[in-house]
Amino acid sequence: MTDLNETHDPSLRAWLDSANDETLGFPIQNLPYCVFRRAGSQEAWRPGAGIGDRILDLAALARARPFTGDAARALAACQGSDLNALMALDAGCRSALRLSLSRALRAGSPLRQDLAPLLVAQSEAEFSVPARIGDYTDFYISLHHATSVGRQFRPDNPLLPNYKWVPIGYHGRASSIGVAQHFHRPVGQTRPAQEGGVPGFGPCARLDYEVELGVFIGTGNPLGRRVALDDADAHIFGLTILNDWSARDLQAWEYQPLGPFLSKNFASTISPWIVTLEALAPFRAPFGRGDGEPQPLPYLSSTRNSAAGALDVQLRATLTTAQSRAQGAPAATLSRSNLRDAYWSVAQLVAHHTVNGCNLQPGDLLGTGTLSGPQPDQAGSLLELTQGGKTPVTLPWGETRLFLQDGDEVALEAECVKPGYPRISLGAAVGRVLPALD
Amino acid sequence: MTDLNETHDPSLRAWLDSANDETLGFPIQNLPYCVFRRAGSQEAWRPGAGIGDRILDLAALARARPFTGDAARALAACQGSDLNALMALDAGCRSALRLSLSRALRAGSPLRQDLAPLLVAQSEAEFSVPARIGDYTDFYISLHHATSVGRQFRPDNPLLPNYKWVPIGYHGRASSIGVAQHFHRPVGQTRPAQEGGVPGFGPCARLDYEVELGVFIGTGNPLGRRVALDDADAHIFGLTILNDWSARDLQAWEYQPLGPFLSKNFASTISPWIVTLEALAPFRAPFGRGDGEPQPLPYLSSTRNSAAGALDVQLRATLTTAQSRAQGAPAATLSRSNLRDAYWSVAQLVAHHTVNGCNLQPGDLLGTGTLSGPQPDQAGSLLELTQGGKTPVTLPWGETRLFLQDGDEVALEAECVKPGYPRISLGAAVGRVLPALD
Repeated sequence: MTDLNETHDPSLRAWLDSANDETLGFPIQNLPYCVFRRAGSQEAWRPGAGIGDRILDLAALARARPFTGDAARALAACQGSDLNALMALDAGCRSALRLSLSRALRAGSPLRQDLAPLLVAQSEAEFSVPARIGDYTDFYISLHHATSVGRQFRPDNPLLPNYKWVPIGYHGRASSIGVAQHFHRPVGQTRPAQEGGVPGFGPCARLDYEVELGVFIGTGNPLGRRVALDDADAHIFGLTILNDWSARDLQAWEYQPLGPFLSKNFASTISPWIVTLEALAPFRAPFGRGDGEPQPLPYLSSTRNSAAGALDVQLRATLTTAQSRAQGAPAATLSRSNLRDAYWSVAQLVAHHTVNGCNLQPGDLLGTGTLSGPQPDQAGSLLELTQGGKTPVTLPWGETRLFLQDGDEVALEAECVKPGYPRISLGAAVGRVLPALD
Repeated sequence: MTDLNETHDPSLRAWLDSANDETLGFPIQNLPYCVFRRAGSQEAWRPGAGIGDRILDLAALARARPFTGDAARALAACQGSDLNALMALDAGCRSALRLSLSRALRAGSPLRQDLAPLLVAQSEAEFSVPARIGDYTDFYISLHHATSVGRQFRPDNPLLPNYKWVPIGYHGRASSIGVAQHFHRPVGQTRPAQEGGVPGFGPCARLDYEVELGVFIGTGNPLGRRVALDDADAHIFGLTILNDWSARDLQAWEYQPLGPFLSKNFASTISPWIVTLEALAPFRAPFGRGDGEPQPLPYLSSTRNSAAGALDVQLRATLTTAQSRAQGAPAATLSRSNLRDAYWSVAQLVAHHTVNGCNLQPGDLLGTGTLSGPQPDQAGSLLELTQGGKTPVTLPWGETRLFLQDGDEVALEAECVKPGYPRISLGAAVGRVLPALD
C-alpha cells in the first residue's frame, strides 16, 4: 500500500469548480479511471479519469505528451480501448501518473489551458467495461452473509468449518459482466415440486441482487509464483462496485456439487469507475474481526496487514420500480453496509488466490462476495432482507418485494467518507430487470 | 452438424506421403488446427493445419491468396496469433476453408508446388494455446465418474437428484490453461487432522489427473439470446483433449459451499490440436444412455440430436515416471474410455450453457468433465482407479501409485477409429509434475 503522499492532502483544490462539489465525490483526491466515449457516437472507446462532473480524456492527453518519466510511460499506456496496459505497469509507475494528474489539475496549474479542452461532460458520455477481464473470481468474505445464508440451509450449523480458515472463492463468468445493464430475467430449471419428479422450467421467480465490491488486478504474477501477502497491494489496481445478480431458485437446484453456474452468469453489473487503491489509502481501517477469531495461517498473516488490512468503504443498495419511476418517487434504500466488516481483506484474497501458483493477470476481477453487516438492515441481498423470501420488504411508495420484479432497477453506490477529507465516490452499478424472453 | 461431404471420402489421399501414415492420425480427412512457430525461434505465433508429420503455415498461405469466396475470407482470418478470428466466422465459412484445404492437399492438386514450401515439420515446431480463451467452463457429463466419485463421499446416495436433469457445470480458470505444461505441485490448505483443529498446509499429497475432452466454441451468441439445441453444432469449432489436474486434498477442504477453486486452477493442459466438429462427422454414434433414463426437458431434447448426439472418440491415459524414463520403459496405460459413454452430448452443453442468456464467445472452452466408462479400467482419474487412494496401481516396471509423484508425466491421447476410414488423432495433452516451490 502506498503511504499517504501529496495527492492525499485534503486541502488540495482543482481548477475545475465541480471537482470541489462534495455531492459528486470526484474531487482531485479521487481521480478514478473509466473507459468512455461520447454517448451515441461511433468514437473509439478510450481511457478517462473522472474529475468533478467531467472526464479527462487520457488518450487525447497522451498525444499531447505533457508528462515525463514514469508518468509519461503510464500515460502512454492509456491509448487503447481498455485499461489493461495501464494496469499491467508496476505500482510505482501507476502512482507517478496519479501524481502528475493531481498536479496538472490543481488550482494554479500551468497545464490548465492544455487540459481544459480535453474534458468531456460525464452527462454526455457513455461507458464501457473498463478492462478486458480475463478471469473473474468471486469470493465470500462477509461472515455475516455466510452465516445468514447458511442458516437458511443449515439452521443448526450455519457456518461451514472451513470458513474461518479459507477465503472461500470460486470462478465466475467474465463475458456477461457489463456496466449499466438492462438484462432479461433468466430462465432455467428449478427443483421438482416433489422429490423424484420432473424439474420446473421457466422464468426465474426468485431474482435477487448482491451488494459487492470488485477488485481489479494491476500487475500480474507468473504461473507458479505466489504473491506474498505483504506484496499483494502492489498487484491491486483499484476497486469498483459489483452487483452479482442471482437467480435463487435456479441456484438451489443446480449448485450441488460444483457450485453456482447459470444462476449467476446471465449478468453481473459493475460501476464504470475504478477508484485506485492509492486513492483509498486515507480510508484504511483496523480489521473488522472480533476478538477470539483464529489466527490465520502464516501465508494469510502479516503484522503490517493486520494493522492496515481493512478499508472503510460504505455501500448502499437502492431500488426503483416501474411504479416508483412513474410517480417520480425517490429511490428506496434497501440496505447499507461496509467493506470494513468483512472477514478477509482484499490483500488476503490476492495472497490466497495465488498460493497454489495460480496466475493473476492485469484486468482480472475479484468480487468480494455479498457485503452484509451484522445488523438486519445491513443485509446485502433480498434473500437475507426477506429471510429467504418469507418476509416482504415494504417500499416507501407502498409496493412490497420478496424478490425483484420486471422493471425493477437496482443501483449500488459506494463511497468513502471521513471528517476533514473530501468525499470519495466509487460511482454506481446500475442494472434493470427486463421481462424474460421466450 | 455438417453432413458428410467430399472431405470425408475415405479414399482421398494427400500428395504428402506422411499424411497417409495411419500411425500419425493426421490424414487429409483430419486437418486439425493449431497455433505454432519454429521451436526456439522468436517468430510470430501463427495458425497452422496439421497434415501428416507437417504443419501447413496458414498465415503464409493467407498471404499467397490461393482461394476465393468464403474460403478466402476464412483463410484471411488465419493471420493473427490465435484462432479466434477464424472461430468467430459462421460454420459455412469455416467449412469452405476445410474444403479448399482438402482440395489443395489432395494428390494431383495443382497447388502442390505453392503449398509444399509452406510446410513445417511438427518435430521442429513449438505450440501455443490455440485460442485466446475468454471463459472456460468445466462440465461433469460422465455418469460413471459422477457415480464413482459420489460413492466415495455419499455411499448410500452417490448420485445427486439433479444429475439426470441438469448438465452440471461450473466456471474454471482460463489463465492457467497451457499446452505441454511442466508445472509445480501446488501447495495449499488441507482439512484439519481433527475436527475443529488447525488446517494442514503444504504441498498437495493427493495430486491427480482427469481425462477430459475440450470443446472450443466457434460462433458466439449475444448476451440474452439462447442457442437452440438444433443450432448448437454450428456454434462449436472443434474438440481438443484436456487434462483437468486436481489436488484432491485441497479440494476436499475448500469445495464447500461454492465448488472447487485452488484445487483446480494451478494448471490445466490441453492438446495443441483442435479437430473440427466437421472432421468428426463420420464418428457420430447413437447416444450412450441406457433405456429407462428420463426424457430431458424440451430445451435439451431433439429428435435430430437424440439420433446423432454422441461422438465415438476414444481416450487413453498413459503415465511415465522419472524411473521409467531412465529405464527406457514404455509408458504405462492407466485407462481407456470413450466420449460415447457420456450422459450428455456436447450440443446439449451449449444449449444448457446459454438457456439463461449467457453469452458464449469464440475461443471459449468447455470441458466435458472426467470421461470414465462403466468398467473399472475405464476410470479417468487416479481417485477412481485407486478407490479414493486406497488401492495402489502397480505399474509395469514395478512402481506403484496412489496419486502422482514429482517427475510423473501424464499423456492423454484421443483418436477416432472405425473400419474403412482413416484414423483421426486429436494429438496428446502432455504435462509433467515438478516439485513444489517453497
